[in-house]
Amino acid sequence: MTSVDISIYPHATGEALKTVQARNTGDVDKTELVFYSGWFCPFVQRVWIALEEKGIPYLYQEENPYKKDKEFLEKFPKGLVPGILYKGKPIAESFVILEFLEDAYPQIPLLPSDPYARSQVRYAVDGVSKSILPPFYRLLQAQETDKQDEARQDLYQGLRTFATGIASPFWAGDQLTHADIALLPFIVRLPILEAHRGFKKSEVGNGFKDYVERVMNLPSVQRTLSDSQRYEEVYGRYLRNESQSEVAKSTRAGRLLP
Amino acid sequence: MTSVDISIYPHATGEALKTVQARNTGDVDKTELVFYSGWFCPFVQRVWIALEEKGIPYLYQEENPYKKDKEFLEKFPKGLVPGILYKGKPIAESFVILEFLEDAYPQIPLLPSDPYARSQVRYAVDGVSKSILPPFYRLLQAQETDKQDEARQDLYQGLRTFATGIASPFWAGDQLTHADIALLPFIVRLPILEAHRGFKKSEVGNGFKDYVERVMNLPSVQRTLSDSQRYEEVYGRYLRNESQSEVAKSTRAGRLLP
Repeated sequence: MTSVDISIYPHATGEALKTVQARNTGDVDKTELVFYSGWFCPFVQRVWIALEEKGIPYLYQEENPYKKDKEFLEKFPKGLVPGILYKGKPIAESFVILEFLEDAYPQIPLLPSDPYARSQVRYAVDGVSKSILPPFYRLLQAQETDKQDEARQDLYQGLRTFATGIASPFWAGDQLTHADIALLPFIVRLPILEAHRGFKKSEVGNGFKDYVERVMNLPSVQRTLSDSQRYEEVYGRYLRNESQSEVAKSTRAGRLLP
Repeated sequence: MTSVDISIYPHATGEALKTVQARNTGDVDKTELVFYSGWFCPFVQRVWIALEEKGIPYLYQEENPYKKDKEFLEKFPKGLVPGILYKGKPIAESFVILEFLEDAYPQIPLLPSDPYARSQVRYAVDGVSKSILPPFYRLLQAQETDKQDEARQDLYQGLRTFATGIASPFWAGDQLTHADIALLPFIVRLPILEAHRGFKKSEVGNGFKDYVERVMNLPSVQRTLSDSQRYEEVYGRYLRNESQSEVAKSTRAGRLLP
């Protein structure tokens, strides 16, 4: 089955491709940040949205995580995207990178300045990781109806808790923050669950449907989107429970996400 | 079995009790931070060490997580310790609290000031959660020899990766940081694995044994320790795989830690 995933479409398409082309015109030697990406990866998309929001110059480097090259593995021993090289030094893990971007590029902050408000954003991010992502992947990969039903209810519950905290227009109010960015790539992928797993945004309630519309319209989000057909190819493998991604394997084994 | 855990020893003992008594002499109305604790909980101990290191005035409030009172659940819907009330507002999750303490009390920082060094500390913290804690609890709870062997090897591997990054005296060098604090409560509990699960610190290598001695001698760590007999009572339940804590139940079910 590994051969299936190696055949993943080799690069970004659509709006995302235009963004890559626009960003990669800079002088390599003068760009302090290299962004190692997989166009289809939701964890990558978190970092990508943040880079675009903050207007940080970067070079985009596509990596096939199923066909890892040696140079990449030397920098990132776990072999996972996203990764960034900052002045030649590697940083991995989407939230470690997001926090780093706040520390190194304070422009257009994606965390509130008030310490208590910051803590609540980080708590929401923790909730996305612990209560939304696991049922999201279980619902995607479950083959039996009863397991799909259970995962769908768990996903509604996780999203409801998130939605309860939504101020408007964004989770924390006027400012886009890590709370929105944590969930956004999974909002982008909700149509797959709507088309194949009976998921309905209206079931979440608490203004979730309107929130989805607001955040999906953000230019930074639109600029990171590939053609929807390409996502369907990738997620078709999850829907048939054939994906060999690290997240898919962990979900199948009932283990922690990597 | 729930009755077993409800009978947990009701309060801190030994050095930890002396600390509680010393801290709770302050004026309740003038103390902006209330620390909701369970004396036996390693996640609580992370926050406790940080409060002691930073010299933040706090009131200590013991909560029995197996017999949750209504007032506590209203503030902390997940019902887990540690929690803090900051000027009356709740904050939960050990690392959300640790980051908050850095933001709200910049004195004696527990994160490096350099953005790249901060990212590496946060990456180490992520590694503790993902690669050390799961095998730690699996080893503690596994009843069959082959499962213990597998968990022990995974734990060695996770600790080796952590130990590779140890500068001296602390993980990040001269400064105690969240990287040390993330692991410290589990270092405190290693003697249980040494006595009952064939764990040997010397097997980790990379200077781990000396590092353990250095961090265990920190006054902030010593001040949070209860009598070793009390830990043995609590962890006896894990060793017999009888514990009803959320972590124990998740480990038993092969699920994500809460």
